[in-house]
Formats: sequence, structure tokens, C-alpha cells
Amino acid sequence: MWRELTLLIFLSVLVKSEYKFETKYFKVPLDHFGYQNKDSFQIKYLVNDDHWDHDSGPIFFYTGNEGQIELFAQHTGFMWETAPEFNAKIVFAEHRYYGTSMPFGNKSLDNDHIGYLTSEQALADYADLVDYLQGGAVIPKYPVIAFGGSYGGMLSAYFRMKYPHLVTGAIAASAPVHMFQGMTNCDSYYKIVTSSFSIDGGNQCTDNIRKSWSAIREFAKNETNAEWLHKNWKLCDPLKNTNNVQELLDFMQSMYETLAMVNYPFPSEFLVPLPAYPVRVVCQYLNGTLNGTKLMEAIGEVLNTFTNYDKKNKCVDYKKGSDYGNLDASGWDYQACTEMVMPMCTTGDHDMFEPRTWNLTQYAADCQKRYGVVPRPDAARIIYGGDRLRAASNIVFSNGLKDPWAGGGVFNTVNESVEVILIIDGAHHLDLMPSNPADPSTVRIARDFHKQRIRRWIRQFRK
Amino acid sequence: MWRELTLLIFLSVLVKSEYKFETKYFKVPLDHFGYQNKDSFQIKYLVNDDHWDHDSGPIFFYTGNEGQIELFAQHTGFMWETAPEFNAKIVFAEHRYYGTSMPFGNKSLDNDHIGYLTSEQALADYADLVDYLQGGAVIPKYPVIAFGGSYGGMLSAYFRMKYPHLVTGAIAASAPVHMFQGMTNCDSYYKIVTSSFSIDGGNQCTDNIRKSWSAIREFAKNETNAEWLHKNWKLCDPLKNTNNVQELLDFMQSMYETLAMVNYPFPSEFLVPLPAYPVRVVCQYLNGTLNGTKLMEAIGEVLNTFTNYDKKNKCVDYKKGSDYGNLDASGWDYQACTEMVMPMCTTGDHDMFEPRTWNLTQYAADCQKRYGVVPRPDAARIIYGGDRLRAASNIVFSNGLKDPWAGGGVFNTVNESVEVILIIDGAHHLDLMPSNPADPSTVRIARDFHKQRIRRWIRQFRK
Repeated sequence: MWRELTLLIFLSVLVKSEYKFETKYFKVPLDHFGYQNKDSFQIKYLVNDDHWDHDSGPIFFYTGNEGQIELFAQHTGFMWETAPEFNAKIVFAEHRYYGTSMPFGNKSLDNDHIGYLTSEQALADYADLVDYLQGGAVIPKYPVIAFGGSYGGMLSAYFRMKYPHLVTGAIAASAPVHMFQGMTNCDSYYKIVTSSFSIDGGNQCTDNIRKSWSAIREFAKNETNAEWLHKNWKLCDPLKNTNNVQELLDFMQSMYETLAMVNYPFPSEFLVPLPAYPVRVVCQYLNGTLNGTKLMEAIGEVLNTFTNYDKKNKCVDYKKGSDYGNLDASGWDYQACTEMVMPMCTTGDHDMFEPRTWNLTQYAADCQKRYGVVPRPDAARIIYGGDRLRAASNIVFSNGLKDPWAGGGVFNTVNESVEVILIIDGAHHLDLMPSNPADPSTVRIARDFHKQRIRRWIRQFRK
Repeated sequence: MWRELTLLIFLSVLVKSEYKFETKYFKVPLDHFGYQNKDSFQIKYLVNDDHWDHDSGPIFFYTGNEGQIELFAQHTGFMWETAPEFNAKIVFAEHRYYGTSMPFGNKSLDNDHIGYLTSEQALADYADLVDYLQGGAVIPKYPVIAFGGSYGGMLSAYFRMKYPHLVTGAIAASAPVHMFQGMTNCDSYYKIVTSSFSIDGGNQCTDNIRKSWSAIREFAKNETNAEWLHKNWKLCDPLKNTNNVQELLDFMQSMYETLAMVNYPFPSEFLVPLPAYPVRVVCQYLNGTLNGTKLMEAIGEVLNTFTNYDKKNKCVDYKKGSDYGNLDASGWDYQACTEMVMPMCTTGDHDMFEPRTWNLTQYAADCQKRYGVVPRPDAARIIYGGDRLRAASNIVFSNGLKDPWAGGGVFNTVNESVEVILIIDGAHHLDLMPSNPADPSTVRIARDFHKQRIRRWIRQFRK
């Protein structure tokens, strides 16, 4: 087992070092949809055209999501591995307000400057960039295929839907385009987190997690116990009050979500460094019926595996909430407070979490307080169509059934060219990750499907 | 002839008085695509549901263009006449920054406030309004058919293209979606103005107009002659210098354009009050080979017919350029300076005007000076696709071949559901006008075609 793991890590490093790109910048207007503000700024994009047929080869265009674009470039192995056989140019475009694509430098995320952070503006950035890559030609020369995972997958689908004249087709991996008010039950996400743990880690694992919440609350009430947790769980900050305990529990809830999301069959540094099948790994500690200190010790091991798999962290910084890891997605909370309002709730019944209802009023009040904005919970449905995608074309929606985000995914083929592929044992956009000897056959099939469709779209373009 | 005319005027008045609607207002965000500015304002819309099947009847939705919406409601008889047989609700939505849909009251058109006047923002207004008319339902109940003529036709097509989940199909009449850089020759518009005059008025008419430009310039150089023109042509202002003469000639060029555009087979007050077949009427004065004072007198008659058909104007206000008549489209110049940059030129060869080249640099400089904006001549192509509409569906593009705007229209069927219908002897969106005994058969055929397609789209929606 150990040998296999190190081999995979070694392979993974090898693959990564092959991903070479040029870093470029492209000027975009701050506001594409109005002329009141006349500022412009630069978005970053990464390019590799080692295998490109400069005459007519396709452009593989990753619609960057909430994070620095290099992270997605490093982990979207599917594009790198597929480009040579298509003689494709590879482009990864960074989403405005993430990475270094900041319109106002380090003031960009201030409430006074963040207002131009929307998906429509980002798509318009990509549209301008694609037009530039086509040389501004009225008749485009190169077929453009959009790729994206997660919010990036939503963007790749939206890019095709809103700019079909610029984008020939889209691979939208794990794109929760239905994760909006009135389209999906708010408990679907956490139900899948739980079922993933149940499938990969067994029911005892989920039972232990389910009862851990109240157990930790009870346990931490005692000052000595709280200090025991501080020390044994290697928490950066002590648990001084119930507020701290809540912060810790929120951190842990987010941890389980992430573990389910990145439950890949190989070790990966995407989001956080983790072993292969991390759900299986952490659930090894949660076997049997655990109570009292035994349960606390076991949960401590889970925490430690999650936060310190690479042995680089000295302590568990539970106060930073879900803002950990490699993503640096500070802007996302703002997007979630404006047009990306995704209702989430837990029942404690069909999931392993404490019950928490979805309360839009409270949510909106929090957004108002934090950013001074009023969320538009229907925005995504009105702008992009949500579950009314019948008029769309040339999109593959892929979903791993172990991925919590599948809860908001497209599960039914929409029409003859908007198709769905399900990856039974796949986590969050596994199909876009670098191929790996440990990949299940279902993801190999999904990748072949993607390639077939890409080939078809390119043929269409050339007709 | 006289009887026929009065009968038609009488009919036209009768028809108009039948168009009854409720005037309503709907709150929209000033900026749909960002949250920096949090203002909102109200757009006007007109509603009639006399014939509506409230359970599932369609909504006929006019995507208002550059003018007060009542004008379009009064002249889009096709919607009024067709609604009963479809049990449709009729909605006319006013475009932001026109009519009374002003975000900043009478300051709206100031350079400091006009920046949110864009087609994308207007479409987003309409999207919100349609959603509201559906009761905010996740599964819409009523099929929505978009209608529009001219820029309104562009908007109806764009509305279907960008929001197909909200709009089932679109009748886009005389929509110059190709009238952008690199898609259409800049001389196409004036070529059609000329051919319309030639067909309806004869070659002598266009010959006389062609030579009138230099003749007027020469004639007006003499002070006595200039005063003669002032008096005989009933100009509000005297021709004091070459600048005034240029203003007069610009006014006249615009006059010929309008005459071709609204060359309807019945008297109409759309844009300006004019007799039936106004091109034919004015060309009666331009028969034979005219020179000197004869030519001046004839042109004077043309001017007088155009500016004072209803005998209400005391003089020809040539200084107001093309900003005459019923449209009140003051915002349009701004749109033409930002994203609706439509290259226009004359050659004097294939058209009856003085040669004038298209000079984007000069055009941009003028826009910069007037509004402080830099035009984006490729914006419409990048945002809406221009001539790359293959992925669109459920649109009928209709064009009257006598309409100058047909020069930028869609002439070839794009795919099985984006179809083209040509009205050989039609002027500017004649098919949307109230039906009239004088209508040519081609426009009747076009209207039947529209109705067939609307029926098909509604069937699709209900499936």
C-alpha cells in the first residue's frame, strides 16, 4: 500500500512537471455591459501551443473558476493529455477577482471595489479573449472547446449557451447548474456527502460522525476537556467558549464536505494535500462504535489527516472556516451573496450533520451586513435558465455520483446534443483530472465520451 | 385617390382607437451585471389581456426599441390583430432610457448618467419582467413570443438567443443584425434607399436627387438665392453660411432615408405623418430633367411634403438633423457610439448621395468628444454573434426588400428553425404594421408565415 502511494505521488509530480505554459495578460473592460465606468484591467491566462496546428487546430479553453488559474491548470490533466491528439492549443483563463486577475490590486475584494465580480462579467472577459485568440476574425478560424469543473463547469456550459458563436461545445464537469432556489432540495448536497462516506467508509463511520457533533459540544463544555482537545487535536487556538466550539464544528463540517469532494483514487493536492481515497482513509479511524474519549481520539486523527497529510501544518487553524487549502477563493462568498445563492440545509436524518434549515432571510441579512448587497436568489435561473436548457446545444454535463455537487447537477439528457454522463464512483470532476492507473473504468469511459463529442463538435465547426 | 386616402386615414384612426392598454411600471436594477451600483428604477410597460387565456395563453412580448413604447404599441398592429386567435396577452415593454423609462429622470441622458444604456441591460430588464409575468415560476406556465421591428427586432432575436429559457420564439422584423463592421458593406443601406426611389419613383427621380446636392450648394452660395430657399422652402432658420447648408443637406439625406423606410402602402404617422407610398408621392415632383430654379422648386415640394404633410409645421427645422418626428430617440446616438456602431457610407455611384466614406477613427473621435466614450465596433459581433447564428433557434427574420435596413438583415435561412422571409415590396417592418386593404400580398404571406411559426413554437413549449 505504501509503495503504491509513493509511486502515485511520484507519477503525479512527474505529470505536473510536464504542464508547461506561458503566462500572459489580456486587457478587459471593468464593465462589459455599461459605459458608466470606463476602467480596464488585465486578466491572466496561460497558454501552451506545443501541439497546436496553427492553421486550424482547436483551442481548448478552460473557463477559470474561483481560484488562481495555475491550480486548475495543474489539475485539469484531461486537457493536457487530450490536446496532442487534437492538435489543440491549451488556454486557461483566470476568473476576474481571483489569482492575480485583480481589477483594483489588493483592494479588489473591498466592498467598494468588489461589485464587478459576477459570472456575466467573467464570461464577457472570456468572450473578448476568445475573439482576440481568433485574431478578431469575423469568420473564426479555430473551433473553441470550453472546459470547466465545478463553478468552472457552470461557466463552460454558460459560455456555450450565451456565446455559441464563439464556443463550439463545452465539457461541463460537476457543474451544479440546478443548485438554485426551487430547482433542487436544499438537503441534496449533504445527503451525498453522507452517502459517499457511507459507501466508502461504512455506516459506522457516518454513525460516529453523526453523533460526534453533540458529543464534542458536551465534551468541550468541561474546561479540562476543552484543553485536551486544544492539545490533542493540535488546534491553533484554544476553545474558550461555545463560539469557538461552533467555529470548530463548522470547520469540521466543511472538512467532511471536502473529503467527499476530493475522494479521488489517487493522492492529490487539489484543494488540500490528501491521500488516495481520503474518505476511506479517515473512516478507518471511525470504525466500530466509538464513544467518549475514544470518539474524540478518532475524530482527532481525522482532523489531523485532513489538515496535515503533508506534515507541513503545525496546528489546526479551525477559525479560518472553509477558507483553507490551495484554492484562495475569497471572492466566492461574495458571489454566493449575489447571484450564486445556493440553498443548503441539513436534516440530521438523511445526512450525518446537525439539522440546519435554509433561511433565506437570515442569509440575505448576513450578506447585507458583510457586503452591503441584497442577494438575487433567482438571478442564475433568470439569466442562465437553470433547469430550462432545452434550447442549448453541444454540452456534456458529467457528474460523479460520489460528488456532493452532483446534487445540483444535470442528470437527464436535455436534447440530442446536451448530454449527461454519470460517473458512478467519481468524486468532484474526476474526469478532468490527470489520468491515473487507479482510475475506475467509469471515468475512462467518461473521458472517451468527452473526446467523441469534442471530435463531433469540431467536425460540425468545419462543415 | 383623395377618397381612398381619407378612407385609409379614417381606418387607421379607427384601428388605433381600438388599441387599449393598461400602463404599468416595473422595478429593475440599474445594473443587472454588477453590484457596484445598487440603484433601481422603473421601466414602463403596456398590457392588454382582453383575449388572454389566463390558464396557459401565450404572452406576446414586444421588446421595445429606441422610443416611447406607445408609438410601437400604436403601430404594431400585427400583435393586436393576432392576439385574439392565440388568446394571447399583449405586453409592450419600454426600453430603458427612452420614453418615461428614465433611470435618472430628465438627467438620464447626461454624460454622467447615460452609461447604463446598453442593449444587454435592456434585455435583462425584459428578462426580469418576463419572469415577473410568469409569477416567478421555476416552470414557466405561459409561452412567450418576442416581437420587435428594427432595433426592436434585433432585441427580439437577441432575447431568444440569450434567454431561450424565457422566450419560446421571436419574430424579428427588419432587424439589421449584420449591420456591423466586417459583415456588411458600408454602402448597402444607401444603395437600398436609392433603389427604392428608383423602383417607386423612377430613375429621373434619383437622377434629380443625385444632382441636387451640388446644385443646392452652388445655388445657396449666392445670398439672394439663400434667402429664396429660406423663404420658398419655409426653412425655420436662414442659410447664413456653408455650415447651415451642410445641416440642410444632412437633414435632406435623412429625409430620403426615412421616406424609403416608411414607404408604406397607406398613410402612416409612424416616424412622421406621410401619405401612402410617400416615395412615389415625392417623386412626382422630381419627374423629368430638372435644373436651376425648377429643381429647387421641386426639392422644395419634397421637403414640404415630408415636413408638413399634416399641415401642422410652420417651417422646416433643418437644424435638428435626424431627430425629428415621433420617435424621440435621443438615446440612440449614444448607443451608436458604444455597441451599436453601424458603418455607413455613400459612393455617389450606386446611390444618389454625395460620396462619404466610413471613417471609424473620425467616428470614434466624435463619440469621444460628444459622450466621452470609446466605441466598441466589435461589441455586437462578440456579444450577439452577428452573422454566426447557427446555434440559435426559433427566430423568423423578416425583411422588406425596399427597406434600407434590409442591407444589414439576415437573408439566408440559418437552420431549420431560424428562418428568413423576404417581402419584396415591403418597407421597414411593414409586416408588423396594422393590416390594410392596400397591403401587398407578400406581406400577407409573411404574416401568415409568422403565425404558423408562432403556433409551432407554442406547441413545442407545451410538449
